[in-house]
Amino acid sequence: MSQARVLATYLIETPYSLEYAAQVMAGEQSTGTFISVPGETQEIKEKFGARVVEVQELESSETPSLPGFKLPKRVNEKPVFRRGLVTLSFPFHNFGPSIPNLLATVAGNLYELREFSGLRLMDLDLPFEFTEVYLGPKFGIEGTRKLAGVYGRPIIGTIIKPSIGLSPEELRPVVRELAMAGLDFIKDDELNGNPPYAPLQQRVKVVMEEIERVADITGKKVMYAFNITGDIDELKRNHDLVYDAGGTCVMVSINSVGLPAVAHLRKYSELPIHGHRNQWGAMTRCPLLGMEFRAYQKLCRLVGVDHLHTNGLNNKFFESNESVLNSVNDCLTPMFGGLTVMPVLSSGQWAGMAVESYTKMQTIDVMNIAGGGILAHPGGTAAGVKSMIQGWEAALSGISLEEYAKTNTELRQAIEKFGS
Amino acid sequence: MSQARVLATYLIETPYSLEYAAQVMAGEQSTGTFISVPGETQEIKEKFGARVVEVQELESSETPSLPGFKLPKRVNEKPVFRRGLVTLSFPFHNFGPSIPNLLATVAGNLYELREFSGLRLMDLDLPFEFTEVYLGPKFGIEGTRKLAGVYGRPIIGTIIKPSIGLSPEELRPVVRELAMAGLDFIKDDELNGNPPYAPLQQRVKVVMEEIERVADITGKKVMYAFNITGDIDELKRNHDLVYDAGGTCVMVSINSVGLPAVAHLRKYSELPIHGHRNQWGAMTRCPLLGMEFRAYQKLCRLVGVDHLHTNGLNNKFFESNESVLNSVNDCLTPMFGGLTVMPVLSSGQWAGMAVESYTKMQTIDVMNIAGGGILAHPGGTAAGVKSMIQGWEAALSGISLEEYAKTNTELRQAIEKFGS
Repeated sequence: MSQARVLATYLIETPYSLEYAAQVMAGEQSTGTFISVPGETQEIKEKFGARVVEVQELESSETPSLPGFKLPKRVNEKPVFRRGLVTLSFPFHNFGPSIPNLLATVAGNLYELREFSGLRLMDLDLPFEFTEVYLGPKFGIEGTRKLAGVYGRPIIGTIIKPSIGLSPEELRPVVRELAMAGLDFIKDDELNGNPPYAPLQQRVKVVMEEIERVADITGKKVMYAFNITGDIDELKRNHDLVYDAGGTCVMVSINSVGLPAVAHLRKYSELPIHGHRNQWGAMTRCPLLGMEFRAYQKLCRLVGVDHLHTNGLNNKFFESNESVLNSVNDCLTPMFGGLTVMPVLSSGQWAGMAVESYTKMQTIDVMNIAGGGILAHPGGTAAGVKSMIQGWEAALSGISLEEYAKTNTELRQAIEKFGS
Repeated sequence: MSQARVLATYLIETPYSLEYAAQVMAGEQSTGTFISVPGETQEIKEKFGARVVEVQELESSETPSLPGFKLPKRVNEKPVFRRGLVTLSFPFHNFGPSIPNLLATVAGNLYELREFSGLRLMDLDLPFEFTEVYLGPKFGIEGTRKLAGVYGRPIIGTIIKPSIGLSPEELRPVVRELAMAGLDFIKDDELNGNPPYAPLQQRVKVVMEEIERVADITGKKVMYAFNITGDIDELKRNHDLVYDAGGTCVMVSINSVGLPAVAHLRKYSELPIHGHRNQWGAMTRCPLLGMEFRAYQKLCRLVGVDHLHTNGLNNKFFESNESVLNSVNDCLTPMFGGLTVMPVLSSGQWAGMAVESYTKMQTIDVMNIAGGGILAHPGGTAAGVKSMIQGWEAALSGISLEEYAKTNTELRQAIEKFGS
């Protein structure tokens, strides 16, 4: 029997002692029950019980973060809600190399326990056995660069706008313009899957016709991430549609389809998988509930996404820059010696963000996606793309944005319009 | 083009006016972008834009529920966080009958918006077109009763304990005892899927041998929910294993596999699907984030679970009795004229709960699952089962628990041990 173990780290908040609370977690998610039952032998507890590996005390709070907790039986004492980092170790043989069953163990019922007024899964340390079942990114950073033909700088992309409502024939000139504008990458909006008014099959046809036509002129075949989000069989049909039409990328809403569906797609996919994390906010915005991106991204990488959304700096969403930087760093940190994915910086992005992004991220292995920041550029879309590239040129050459803008019109126009 | 619309109701908290916040939601999840772009015509907005249908003001708060919000530009004014119920109407043709794409729309990026310090999806009203794609429960309440052979009272069940660690041969006598004890239903623990130390294939073999053997003696074939949770192809293999061995139920951790995987399983399943909702706490425990069970259970029912966990009254988890009662009622409320599922009352259940449960739920169409409440009964497992049935007999005959216990030993013993 494999001696491997899974380590799971949690941020907890509890009116009990941290040590006691950690034991409750270990019991609930392995061999425990609310009343001792026959057959719960010492041997079973030793071989299958989760262990508390580490408890690190943090600050405490006078108010609970979440409702539904119970209090220890202490009289005349104001409750204190202690916070701490707890690491549990689970025997790998309790579930084997199965992400669905891993989740039932490391997350499972923990969020519902009344001993806690807060509980968040922060990180996972998994044994290599998981890589024997989950294939990881097929293309990753290098494969994506090769297909997109972009080296030495980030991949510059945009989103089809309006996000929804364009008929296939209305989409045609939009794609033509974007492809002619020199973009490296275009993506469907996550709102636009396979809607009745513009079925994916028709969208793929017109989009690929335009992309090939432009490639014949410019020599550059833009990578287009078709949103193939759908049910299990539909994912396969949609993937095949895109592949057969000569497409070079598929996009999937990870939380809409579930991690097993992504792992399934990865098995037959011939194309990079652009992982969109919409709905992630529900899992992460409450600081003492749900999951930290560090844990989540490991699972996304294992099941095989090649690109993963992380938001960008100064995004229009709730996420702080510190969190964005951690996320980018997480995606680029090797796991089992590899499996890195390309972080996708998006939301409120424009040319002027490049210097700050590069200074803080110290990498060019990102996709930098701008919607309005490219499409609403005063010089038009091509100028928008140029401004983004110029922004990264400034960043890479160590020249300030303002200085570089003096000799680069498109960057200057971008600063004038979007800088504030 | 179908004129159908999806209604989605949210509980929100915002430092802006409720009307403005509702418009932001509608824009973000349909035709909006942070800077107006060409092509965003009035016609597209009318045909594809989401509409605010209703805004109902609730109480307001001086403190925000979630971090990451921004404040309106008002000077010298203390922010007020207004709460309200907002109903949006989305054109069905924006996504079609696709749950994954529906989720990208009705949940999507909403949780991340800085205009909100709280946002929770409360309910969904879907057009019947969804039933043309999603099959709903194949067995439901009647099909389950028929397979289990139980009428006129709830289905009484238990969980294999210890939840993990039993080898197939150690499991054999446990199942034999439970089956002989007269249980209607036995389930694997959600922690126990297809682990290396006790592969599902071996578990199915010994469990079904014992169940058939007991059925030969007693004439009663207990329904056993094998936990088949796993990746996409594994779900099929596991289902087939159970079906081929004569099993009568499969269990799946819905949130581990994702709704599309359940819908996929439903397409080929020949057995009732026992839906376990572990990890649900992460989506629901923060009152102003995530999702309400009312919305979630509709999706679970559409994809085809036959039984759905709701917790029971006085459970050991954070969930209040009020919430449990709402959940049970939701599961039993027809959707498109049917699709009802059997609510599964579990956690901290024992015989004494029946009267309160029946009084408050006014239904017998539930599964009542007790672990310790049956297995740790002082008279043994068979007495534990009898006590549960006696509890429901008391409830149905309108006799008080104490009165009924006078002439029913097992119920009396249960009250002595578990009542407090």
